[in-house]
Amino acid sequence: MTTPERDDRDLHDGDQELALSDHRTEQQRAAAVDTGTALGERTQRPDVDIPTPAEASADIGVVGMAVMGSNLARNLARHDYAVALYDHWVDRTATMMTEHGAEGTFVPAGSVEDFVRSLKRPRSIILLVKAGDVTDQVIDTLTPLLEKGDVVIDGGNSYFQDTRRREAKLAELGLHFVGAGVSGGEVGALEGPSIMPGGPTESYEVVGPMLEAISAHVDGEPCCTHIGPDGSGHFVKMVHNGIEYADIQFIGEAYELLRAAGFSLEEAAEVFETWNTGDLDSYLIEITAEVLRQKDARTGKALVDVIVDAAGMKGTGTWTVQSALDLATPVNVIAESVFARAASSHAELREHAQRVLAGPDARIAVEDLESFVSDLRDALWSSKVIAYAQGLDEIRMAGQEYGWDVNMAEVAKIWRAGCIIRAKILDRIRDEYAANNLATLLEAPSIRDGLEKAQGGWRRTIARAVEAGVPAPGFAAGIGYYDTIRAPRGNAALTQGLRDFFGSHTYRRIDDEGSFHTLWSGDRSEIAVD
Amino acid sequence: MTTPERDDRDLHDGDQELALSDHRTEQQRAAAVDTGTALGERTQRPDVDIPTPAEASADIGVVGMAVMGSNLARNLARHDYAVALYDHWVDRTATMMTEHGAEGTFVPAGSVEDFVRSLKRPRSIILLVKAGDVTDQVIDTLTPLLEKGDVVIDGGNSYFQDTRRREAKLAELGLHFVGAGVSGGEVGALEGPSIMPGGPTESYEVVGPMLEAISAHVDGEPCCTHIGPDGSGHFVKMVHNGIEYADIQFIGEAYELLRAAGFSLEEAAEVFETWNTGDLDSYLIEITAEVLRQKDARTGKALVDVIVDAAGMKGTGTWTVQSALDLATPVNVIAESVFARAASSHAELREHAQRVLAGPDARIAVEDLESFVSDLRDALWSSKVIAYAQGLDEIRMAGQEYGWDVNMAEVAKIWRAGCIIRAKILDRIRDEYAANNLATLLEAPSIRDGLEKAQGGWRRTIARAVEAGVPAPGFAAGIGYYDTIRAPRGNAALTQGLRDFFGSHTYRRIDDEGSFHTLWSGDRSEIAVD
Repeated sequence: MTTPERDDRDLHDGDQELALSDHRTEQQRAAAVDTGTALGERTQRPDVDIPTPAEASADIGVVGMAVMGSNLARNLARHDYAVALYDHWVDRTATMMTEHGAEGTFVPAGSVEDFVRSLKRPRSIILLVKAGDVTDQVIDTLTPLLEKGDVVIDGGNSYFQDTRRREAKLAELGLHFVGAGVSGGEVGALEGPSIMPGGPTESYEVVGPMLEAISAHVDGEPCCTHIGPDGSGHFVKMVHNGIEYADIQFIGEAYELLRAAGFSLEEAAEVFETWNTGDLDSYLIEITAEVLRQKDARTGKALVDVIVDAAGMKGTGTWTVQSALDLATPVNVIAESVFARAASSHAELREHAQRVLAGPDARIAVEDLESFVSDLRDALWSSKVIAYAQGLDEIRMAGQEYGWDVNMAEVAKIWRAGCIIRAKILDRIRDEYAANNLATLLEAPSIRDGLEKAQGGWRRTIARAVEAGVPAPGFAAGIGYYDTIRAPRGNAALTQGLRDFFGSHTYRRIDDEGSFHTLWSGDRSEIAVD
Repeated sequence: MTTPERDDRDLHDGDQELALSDHRTEQQRAAAVDTGTALGERTQRPDVDIPTPAEASADIGVVGMAVMGSNLARNLARHDYAVALYDHWVDRTATMMTEHGAEGTFVPAGSVEDFVRSLKRPRSIILLVKAGDVTDQVIDTLTPLLEKGDVVIDGGNSYFQDTRRREAKLAELGLHFVGAGVSGGEVGALEGPSIMPGGPTESYEVVGPMLEAISAHVDGEPCCTHIGPDGSGHFVKMVHNGIEYADIQFIGEAYELLRAAGFSLEEAAEVFETWNTGDLDSYLIEITAEVLRQKDARTGKALVDVIVDAAGMKGTGTWTVQSALDLATPVNVIAESVFARAASSHAELREHAQRVLAGPDARIAVEDLESFVSDLRDALWSSKVIAYAQGLDEIRMAGQEYGWDVNMAEVAKIWRAGCIIRAKILDRIRDEYAANNLATLLEAPSIRDGLEKAQGGWRRTIARAVEAGVPAPGFAAGIGYYDTIRAPRGNAALTQGLRDFFGSHTYRRIDDEGSFHTLWSGDRSEIAVD
């Protein structure tokens, strides 16, 4: 089934979290990673016959029968919705029906026209296709068949500026476009993801109840809320992924430090397991213990020791940092996490650097094991809090820039389950935002108190790492941010002085309004400018 | 003369290094920062009469009579070129003639047509106008009047992708477009800047000799060379500015640490002055001592203590990091420098953080002054080398991506004078690249030896800063990069294990080809994927 055309694709579609189901066939796996052809025209469609569906028989439609789309369709069906199904590759739709058709009410369609006709009005259609050009192609194919008030939901990892553009374009046609971040991978799509829908408020009245029904729940509350207008949903999902990068980097730094201190992988796994019973309780910490314990059947070694030490990434982390730069919002711990992955995959650089660069041997002589681990925990917790603070600050600044009014308590609430960064601390973050008007998460009473207590260990951990030559750029970036923003004065006044000297960029004074310039190459008097 | 329209502008044109001459009038200063209207149509042009120039009487033309353009024109005239002058605001051209007309052979023009007609063929025209839309407007106005083989040089801080687009567009018309980075500010433009021209090789045959003549020189060698095709010149200038951000941030961190250790500003200035006699000898270190010594006439305090502690930026540093992210090239020290400026200007965040965040009081008890300063010097030198290495790596990766073949020895050579980051160490960097085929600057023999010696002090400095609560995110990012790339294995294998666990992203094995996936939620066996 896999044609050369299908394989000739670039999956830079953000952390799509496309999952390869453990028990599927080779063919299914090929389909799973190819969400690019839901309405593509690249090859002849296979000759599969799907009968014409009844008109207005489905509550909602899903375009894209790769794993994310089919699992989301199954999730909808489990919640008693009648779900129309469409994929350009009708054999995928057929396979989906063969394997899961009995799970609920599905309305498969063999053509876009049939698909649209099968939907009740106002129509709700979720796209789970490859982010980028394919999304535009699918939208262009659908829109002529739709009517005012219909809602198109893009559940892919689209770039939020694309979403803004698409929303504006569909609004002109009287259609609602909802950019919805969906996190949780294949399992989440099936069992309850975290869903971050943006778009017009009216559209949420149509699709909100369905999305909330299929989302993950915590204490009866859905992990789905209306984020705000146009690109806000995809923006929040993008930042979710940026925080995910940071979370993973911090775990990685803690892991490296444990190994540098002589911990076996089993011992390191135990440390993570212990941490997972406390305030660091989170999905990523939990699965770290699992990954560290995994043995490689071929060699008998630990799996983590036979995996190539080069991390991949798909774009959302990069976008998070680039967007923050556009907003002049510091997200240095997320940036360090993205750069750490980039460095790990910069093979030529590493090869040459490893050959010639001198330094300590990355061994830490630990005198007091307990305080070493406790310090490490404090470094991990503090850095993690900084990552959340930076990501939420980026969302806040984007809201100001793009006219969204994102409720941070709601964001924290819907990240508590279903998504990759789900963590116990999000309960507290939700509560803090609900109770306080916070300019930054760091000023939340329980967070700032936690940082006050944890920072000794955090600082000692960084000093140990730097001394021993163990890279800890994420931990160090976190303390740099913390100390930068709490300092009454930093080095920016000197920067302004230098910029005025070499480029006449002018400066402001603490005791006067306006801009000033010193006549550096003249008599060094000061003039007012403006 | 200043109209509301003129003031209603946004000067986000990169570090244009527009300078306010010390001795100019208010009107001239207003003109100096407004390079946006060289061919603009926003208001009525003033009624100034400029006689029709003789045909083909000028060797080269300059569009834009704000300070950068007029100074570059004067520089050209000083080198015996006949220089045609044009600005949409003919009063500017008239003022330039009144004040500097006697300095050489100038050919002022009152209209674009006259301007173009006055040039010898093939025509060479340099634009010094506001980067962005204005550049496109000027190009669109000029091109219908030009002929095959004519060369248009954009001397502004344009984004390199815009330059690539413009070069391709003009190439279709048979015209040559040269995106040329020009660094050195107002003084450099007049007395010899560092010039980084990209564009087609043929164009350099026409304009290269003129640009080399007016550039800064070191030992008879010009600080101007043909960088490579299309956007390469502006890319190299962008990275120059990114390195400049890092240089300034490191100086700022050293300054903060000196103050934290109780140094007076005079004592700190002396330290920088001493450093400037050694391997740190550079323009920015030199002027740091000057800025630190500057007294504020109004208050009697140090100037640096009355300047608002919020740094500005204009875009090239941001672009440097965003472009590096596109290329997956780690430039974390440059990113930290951009984020440090962003944090300094994030007023609400700082205000709230200062109010509530606890931490050490940013005082360092120094036992041995000499070794404290020596360690600090080592931190500054090492971090600076890392910034150069990252910037040059970004240029190298961009060359691979965009098909440029940038000669690093030449880049180092033309940065040795005229530009803001000019520094003695660039001699050595030039020599190292000339003598060795380097994948990274860090493997150059003298650099890696220097890092081996300096890293003890570098590490101690970071440990001291982190312990005392003095922000040193740039120094720390540098050591993080150094230790990351020299490590035989880091944490990326764990990252890949986690990504495979939660997102089935697959991993590679050190002992086999292809991609693999562990059936995490199945029997945990491994399958080959592809």
